[in-house]
Amino acid sequence: MSKYCFGVDLGGTTVKIGLFSPEGEVIEKWEIPTRKENDGTNILPDIAKSVLAKMEERGITKESVIGVGIGVPGPVDDAGVVYRAVNLGWGVMNINEVLGGLLDIPVKAANDANVAALGEMWCGGGKGCKDLVLATLGTGVGGGIIVNEKIVTGSKGAGGEIGHMHIVDGEPDACGCGNHGCLEQYASATGIVRLAKRKLASSNEGSVLRSALEKDNLSAKAVFDAVKAGDKIACEIAEEFGMYLGKGFAAVAAVVNPEVFVLGGGVSKAGEILCGYVAKHYEKYVFHGCKNAVFKLATLGNDAGIYGAAKLVLG
Amino acid sequence: MSKYCFGVDLGGTTVKIGLFSPEGEVIEKWEIPTRKENDGTNILPDIAKSVLAKMEERGITKESVIGVGIGVPGPVDDAGVVYRAVNLGWGVMNINEVLGGLLDIPVKAANDANVAALGEMWCGGGKGCKDLVLATLGTGVGGGIIVNEKIVTGSKGAGGEIGHMHIVDGEPDACGCGNHGCLEQYASATGIVRLAKRKLASSNEGSVLRSALEKDNLSAKAVFDAVKAGDKIACEIAEEFGMYLGKGFAAVAAVVNPEVFVLGGGVSKAGEILCGYVAKHYEKYVFHGCKNAVFKLATLGNDAGIYGAAKLVLG
Repeated sequence: MSKYCFGVDLGGTTVKIGLFSPEGEVIEKWEIPTRKENDGTNILPDIAKSVLAKMEERGITKESVIGVGIGVPGPVDDAGVVYRAVNLGWGVMNINEVLGGLLDIPVKAANDANVAALGEMWCGGGKGCKDLVLATLGTGVGGGIIVNEKIVTGSKGAGGEIGHMHIVDGEPDACGCGNHGCLEQYASATGIVRLAKRKLASSNEGSVLRSALEKDNLSAKAVFDAVKAGDKIACEIAEEFGMYLGKGFAAVAAVVNPEVFVLGGGVSKAGEILCGYVAKHYEKYVFHGCKNAVFKLATLGNDAGIYGAAKLVLG
Repeated sequence: MSKYCFGVDLGGTTVKIGLFSPEGEVIEKWEIPTRKENDGTNILPDIAKSVLAKMEERGITKESVIGVGIGVPGPVDDAGVVYRAVNLGWGVMNINEVLGGLLDIPVKAANDANVAALGEMWCGGGKGCKDLVLATLGTGVGGGIIVNEKIVTGSKGAGGEIGHMHIVDGEPDACGCGNHGCLEQYASATGIVRLAKRKLASSNEGSVLRSALEKDNLSAKAVFDAVKAGDKIACEIAEEFGMYLGKGFAAVAAVVNPEVFVLGGGVSKAGEILCGYVAKHYEKYVFHGCKNAVFKLATLGNDAGIYGAAKLVLG
């Protein structure tokens, strides 16, 4: 009898669900809306209904399902308890128990950024590695740490929160978390725009980014497009970005000494050029025993979550 | 039949060996010299001889020995291979195989700083915790990271090298590792003396540390003794020390979010006062999800290595 597992990526707007073979093949993937009304009480029942309907449609028995993994936007402990998921309206909730009870199938929950790292290890940019760090460079900087093929959850579910590593003293602007000088303030898409604005304000040198600024469409993409076109100011901004992220990764390496750093999120669409900027500064700051780390781009895009969630239940 | 295990702490001068019960009770401990001549070829045979002699003396059969764990001063990978142990004269050596072959008993090797962390988790300052960080503040700063009761070895055996986390930009002095601005340069015994000398040179304010400096016996101990006596300059030095170590620990927390930080090594003899200085600055820099971490003193002293080594083979 064939075996199956489900990977669920629970987001603030949609729930992505994938049906997988244990070898990492996606058999089918689909989405349902995330109904956040009434403190999100419909969310887990909706997911259960969708999974059970898919099983019935395909004639999959409960006995042939290894389990259902789920990535959740909030800190989740090793028992599957989420303590606060602001985006979903949830308070404390034991997802393994609640969703497992609805499905009568084993469920394993973990934080979504950590789950994405597991997905990139299993079938993405870090395939074949046991020790990996994923940095998701989007509106913020998310992170996931994999040690010996397992997610580092941390004692309060805050493992891998590398976006909130203190990296700069004396930063006047506050990070979304309330601290000042977090990595996220320099290495996220919004952080890169901040760096760009500061750089443009600090000199009168010409740059294609000035017109983007005037038209109010200065973005991380605009910066890296300008880098590829050889714009000097843009290259200086990219160096700064690389310095902050390289420094952050060097600190991460002194803790867990990963084999590979994977760059994901919107910013990573800039491509391989990104890895060069980060690696250069990483090598400058890092302990000699951690030199020559590999920097790769994430390859699973928005599917990293469903892959990682499926891998959660495969162990 | 009673079961036993051995814990071996291989140092540059002596080898400490302990005979343990699986419950963590030391039945006996002793030392033999580390014979480093001839590229250290006698070291493992000496250890094997000593362990076998003890078994004969006590009538312990091979079948009743769960295994022999050993902590080694150098990076060791998960297979027990040490790639370079400068202090011992060794090149590449598979300790699990070589010592296991000599003993005909299962052997598990790991880096000594990591093993000490495991020991403090098992029976010391971190007893009862699954996620722990040990910082050994001695001549340098050693570190060991425990996640889910297991050592984080890292891809090249450099996991837990927190002493070489880059913490200060623009440091003119070089660290022993060749980099500039490593945590070790501010939080080790020698680092504290460096901070003290700079502080004393930067002002004319009176301090009991000035006479210590003149008599050439300025030490980390002298600094913390002066702190306890209320010396203002000494308190400022302690604040600086706490700021650097707190900042380093906050970065560690953003990666692995431990439950407890344990302070060991010679500097930790200053006592509980140390934890206060570090915790204060840690809380300032750390991500809110990692706040309220516990700071404790190591309790096993020089025995942390034999405890952790024994725990290695107990899994």
